[in-house]
Amino acid sequence: MSKGLPKRSEDYSLWYNELVKRADLAENSAVRGCMVIKPYGFSIWEKMQAELDRMFKETGHTNAYFPLFIPKSYLSKEASHVEGFAKECAVVTHYRLKNSDDGKSVIVDPDAKLEEELIVRPTSETVIWSTYKNWVQSYRDLPLLINQWANVVRWEMRTRLFLRTAEFLWQEGHTAHATAEEAVEETVQMMNIYAQFAEEFMALPVVKGIKTESERFAGAVETYCIEAMMQDGKALQAGTSHFLGQNFAKAFDVKFATKEGGLDYVWGTSWGVSTRLMGALIMAHSDDNGLVLPPKLAPFQVVIVPIYKGDEELALVSEKANEIMAELRKVGVSVKFDNRDTHKPGWKFAEYELKGVPVRIAIGPRDLANNTIEIARRDTLTKEQFDLSTQPIAEKISSLLEIIQNDIYNSALSFRNEKTTEVNSWEEFKDVLENKGGFISAHWDGTPETEDKIKELTKATIRCIPIHHEEEEGKCVYSGKPSSKRVLFAKSY
Amino acid sequence: MSKGLPKRSEDYSLWYNELVKRADLAENSAVRGCMVIKPYGFSIWEKMQAELDRMFKETGHTNAYFPLFIPKSYLSKEASHVEGFAKECAVVTHYRLKNSDDGKSVIVDPDAKLEEELIVRPTSETVIWSTYKNWVQSYRDLPLLINQWANVVRWEMRTRLFLRTAEFLWQEGHTAHATAEEAVEETVQMMNIYAQFAEEFMALPVVKGIKTESERFAGAVETYCIEAMMQDGKALQAGTSHFLGQNFAKAFDVKFATKEGGLDYVWGTSWGVSTRLMGALIMAHSDDNGLVLPPKLAPFQVVIVPIYKGDEELALVSEKANEIMAELRKVGVSVKFDNRDTHKPGWKFAEYELKGVPVRIAIGPRDLANNTIEIARRDTLTKEQFDLSTQPIAEKISSLLEIIQNDIYNSALSFRNEKTTEVNSWEEFKDVLENKGGFISAHWDGTPETEDKIKELTKATIRCIPIHHEEEEGKCVYSGKPSSKRVLFAKSY
Repeated sequence: MSKGLPKRSEDYSLWYNELVKRADLAENSAVRGCMVIKPYGFSIWEKMQAELDRMFKETGHTNAYFPLFIPKSYLSKEASHVEGFAKECAVVTHYRLKNSDDGKSVIVDPDAKLEEELIVRPTSETVIWSTYKNWVQSYRDLPLLINQWANVVRWEMRTRLFLRTAEFLWQEGHTAHATAEEAVEETVQMMNIYAQFAEEFMALPVVKGIKTESERFAGAVETYCIEAMMQDGKALQAGTSHFLGQNFAKAFDVKFATKEGGLDYVWGTSWGVSTRLMGALIMAHSDDNGLVLPPKLAPFQVVIVPIYKGDEELALVSEKANEIMAELRKVGVSVKFDNRDTHKPGWKFAEYELKGVPVRIAIGPRDLANNTIEIARRDTLTKEQFDLSTQPIAEKISSLLEIIQNDIYNSALSFRNEKTTEVNSWEEFKDVLENKGGFISAHWDGTPETEDKIKELTKATIRCIPIHHEEEEGKCVYSGKPSSKRVLFAKSY
Repeated sequence: MSKGLPKRSEDYSLWYNELVKRADLAENSAVRGCMVIKPYGFSIWEKMQAELDRMFKETGHTNAYFPLFIPKSYLSKEASHVEGFAKECAVVTHYRLKNSDDGKSVIVDPDAKLEEELIVRPTSETVIWSTYKNWVQSYRDLPLLINQWANVVRWEMRTRLFLRTAEFLWQEGHTAHATAEEAVEETVQMMNIYAQFAEEFMALPVVKGIKTESERFAGAVETYCIEAMMQDGKALQAGTSHFLGQNFAKAFDVKFATKEGGLDYVWGTSWGVSTRLMGALIMAHSDDNGLVLPPKLAPFQVVIVPIYKGDEELALVSEKANEIMAELRKVGVSVKFDNRDTHKPGWKFAEYELKGVPVRIAIGPRDLANNTIEIARRDTLTKEQFDLSTQPIAEKISSLLEIIQNDIYNSALSFRNEKTTEVNSWEEFKDVLENKGGFISAHWDGTPETEDKIKELTKATIRCIPIHHEEEEGKCVYSGKPSSKRVLFAKSY
């Protein structure tokens, strides 16, 4: 390991960028805005995928795969959709290269121009609804409950690893239903699944809510979302679920014969989470020493580092390490034994701190004599000498991993609670935003004009209208007009 | 179900196309050459992925993700690589659309032209080796054993679902090693893993071999492959593993400090299988009634169809079905109970035959009285009345699934053996190829000229130089020149 990370308190943004690179999560590629997800980072994403995929399947969804390319004309079939995406589309115009005249390079072959340009999918509603048209004739064909895991491209001008990249990985669910009620129910169900995933696996508390019109997905009737708070007090949208009404069914003429003998347009939803979740995971829990990973998503949960001089001691320590590994694996704990002789224990300690391995076990000759091991927690950076005769090691570590998972969640929750402020005047709003940051719960008059004005003046946006908020009489914090519910303001990623 | 499939004996190609569509495996999309993989087809692919991924990880590989886009200039860094791929590359030239002047459509924004065009990856050697340059300094950084699951694009002029599509899904392994020996060992290991996967899971016997120079991967020193025989006697290349020598290391300047204190270029391999395997699976085993799936890759292995009149009978039959399902699931057999009242049993029987479900269980009121069920095998289309008191049902079905898996493999193996012919003269070669088809084992003088000539005259190509073939003195079947080993000729997909 080279020198330490930048400190969060000094430069949060630099700290994040450096951490992502040094912990071997991702790096920039030669193509502007496109990232390489490195093996360690990708194995966290794989764990996220596995849990989400299980949750989708348990609620009746199946996976499929739709084309990467979308004919340009498809995009414009849904008016607000094209407006939302046209400005950031990678466009394929040719299908062949050829040698340059001097033979030294390749150039685009002008004779290989496509009749209609193709865009690389920024999201797949259009290509999927054009397919659904042929799959749906009758109410018997509904619901369609389909998800795909895919790469998508949005040509962003300012990019950051995981948080905003030109290409990213995601899943996009696209469902079709016979009634509006059923589609809304699906939309809400998926928001709840995302929230459950964030809280149970990412140890990330989230606020469930509804987006205002101006923050809504291009083509949706209503957008549900989950919003999380990062350690700098900024909000990060961690997942969205859209009720599409009949918008895409109308754009692509997807009708079905109803049970009652009529003909109606199908009701749709779409919902997605992306590799952006990696950014949320990193920024929510990590510290100035490196990553802090919740045990449920750590590529390995325990690392064993041997402390030894010479081969004889190594052999004895290894024997004990192997015993412990076997016990841990039996109960499903993932564990790595780092017996490389190319690096010293201190170097390894720092390395696994940087990489956020939840539990580190160190074993030296004195431990062998005393039947002890040293157990260190990554989240709290605390250590204990553990007497192996007092409790089976598998039991000890399993319960410790559960404690860590809960503690990380609770610590993020306390932080968010502490950084969420109810304000009732414009002065207070500006003061809290400037001096404390975090989420601001305030009344809003419900107009896009006020929303825009507040954004213009403070850079804070309405993250969502929280679902759990009670109705409450009040006055808009900016305009003073009447309001019946508080909404959540914050600066955001 | 609509009318029956075309017959294999009458039009094998049409039979294949229709089967893929009617069994809900895949269909063509609006974008030429790009397919939609439907949920039933995709769930077979997911099973393939899961097994392959497990095998890769068990041999020390990890997954990562590299960008979809490759700068055009990267492609030309390896001379033979660019020659192999430049003619079939989708090229991204712009990054934005805008409204047309009449406001009725969107057009490509001429102001949003990329400085350097990007190609959509046809394979990722170039972008990955440009990344490896920064990951490898010393022998301690080697080997790199990395795989990615991704979509790739090759702009093929003539496409067929699964077999040859403009976009397809695959995995591509890219490894880097300190020595040529180690890299060759890796190349051979991966060919062996592909062969094991094909035989154990796809029930598909394959010939392992080496490609001739003209069939080699663009940029490789040696290409290893597995070749399978389809029911029309044609060969299908089911997986390739390439020893890249130092070609890409030299093209991207990837050097490492050796253990001995020197500086050397890294040795590379790459290997891949794709959704083409779906085509192989379908064409190898299926019949005029529909798909025949090996139990290890079937989305569900058993379907239970109730035979009943009225709700009372359905309730009784359902009770028995639920009991059986519970028993089967306990031992890991996947099972579906189709109690839809919208379709008759005969319709369901045909539907599951078409979809290749390995075992069908039918239960009617008479069965309840006799404590029996009807068990039908998809592969042999045979039925038996099974007395539930004679053997636990879970044991019966588990062992039947094993038998089916083996029988499908053995049947494909017998077919291949029967259709593989050793020939020793040019007359015989032409006669066998024309009248019998299949694989022809023959001597070849080792020259590309003879290989080309034979291809030109007969459309047969050298599928591989089989690894299991013994050295044997002989004369080239075409030129009469001396040869020391037989090679395998066939027409191919």
